[in-house]
Amino acid sequence: MTLQKLPLEKSFMFLESGPVLLVTTRVGRKNNVMTISWHMVLDFTPLLALKTGPWNYSFAALLEQRECVLCVPAVDLAEKTVRIGAISGEKVDKLKKFGLNVKKAETVKPPLLEDCLFCLECRVVDYIEAYGIIVLEGKQAWYNTAKDNKQTFHANGDGTFIVDGKILNYRNIMKDKIPPGV
Amino acid sequence: MTLQKLPLEKSFMFLESGPVLLVTTRVGRKNNVMTISWHMVLDFTPLLALKTGPWNYSFAALLEQRECVLCVPAVDLAEKTVRIGAISGEKVDKLKKFGLNVKKAETVKPPLLEDCLFCLECRVVDYIEAYGIIVLEGKQAWYNTAKDNKQTFHANGDGTFIVDGKILNYRNIMKDKIPPGV
Repeated sequence: MTLQKLPLEKSFMFLESGPVLLVTTRVGRKNNVMTISWHMVLDFTPLLALKTGPWNYSFAALLEQRECVLCVPAVDLAEKTVRIGAISGEKVDKLKKFGLNVKKAETVKPPLLEDCLFCLECRVVDYIEAYGIIVLEGKQAWYNTAKDNKQTFHANGDGTFIVDGKILNYRNIMKDKIPPGV
Repeated sequence: MTLQKLPLEKSFMFLESGPVLLVTTRVGRKNNVMTISWHMVLDFTPLLALKTGPWNYSFAALLEQRECVLCVPAVDLAEKTVRIGAISGEKVDKLKKFGLNVKKAETVKPPLLEDCLFCLECRVVDYIEAYGIIVLEGKQAWYNTAKDNKQTFHANGDGTFIVDGKILNYRNIMKDKIPPGV
C-alpha cells in the first residue's frame, strides 16, 4: 500500500508545475492509458483543463465515460511514459504491455497507477469543443509515500524532457498568496 | 540586441513544459506585468490558454486591449518574477519598480521583456468566461540568444519552485509525433 489518500486541496501542487501526465480511462472492461503534457490548473478545488482530441484513442472514452485518473509519474517512469505516448491503445492493452501496476480507484472506474507519485480521480465536467479542452474536477487524490525519487519531468515538445532540478523557496515573498493549508 | 526572431511554430517548445511566465499588458500608455503559472498549449500554431480573472489587475487590460506578451524568464529572474507576482500593478509601475528592460513589440502594444529567454506577442482570440480561460494566438516569437543560463523554473503552488535539471532525450521514441521542423 504505497498510495495514501491526500487532501484534495493539495492536488494542484502536483500539477501546477506542468509535469508530463499519464491519464487512465476505461470503456466497458477495457482500461487504457495515455501520455499528456498539455494541461493546466483552473482552480484550487481542483478544477483542471486537458487538451486532447479525436486523434487520441482515449478521447472517445473520456467523453463517453466522463471519468479519468490523472497520474504524475516520477523520473523512474520517464522512458515508459514516453513509450506509452508513442503508441495507440486501440489494438494494444497498454497497461499490460508496459507492466503498469493498477489499483482500484474509489470514485471512478479507471484505475490508479500504483507506481506513480500522485494520482487524482477526476470527473469530466465539461468539454469546450471549439478548443478541445476537457474540464475535469478532482474527486479523490492519492500520494505515493514509498517513492524515494520524487523528481518529475516536463516535455519540451521536441522529444526532449526536463527533469526537476533544485528547489527554490520563496514562501516568504508569496505568503499572502498561498492558500490555507498548503 | 539580444532578442532575435524565432519561427512561430517553435514557440510551443518554450511553453509546453509549464514554466512560470511574465505577461505584459498595456492600457493607454501604461504598461503592466503579471506572473502566471496556470497556462497551457492548445496547438502548434500556437494557440495557448491562460487562466486568470478579475482578481488580477492585468485581467481588465487583457480583455479590453486583447493583446499581451508571454515571456519566459530564466532562473536569473526567479526572485524578481515571484516578487512581481506578489504585488498589484494598480498603484505601482511594476516594470519600472523591478527595473525590467523593455523593447517594442512588432505586432502588439505591450512590450517585450529583453531579459527573458523567450517572448511571444499574442492576441486574445477568445475568453471562456465560465472558467476564466483566455485563449491566445501567438503572432511573433523572440528568442534571447545572449542568455548563458537557459534553465527555466516551475511553480509548485506552495511558494517553492523547481529549477530545470538534467535533460532526457527520447526523440528516437517520439520521432513520429514531433512536428516537422522541431
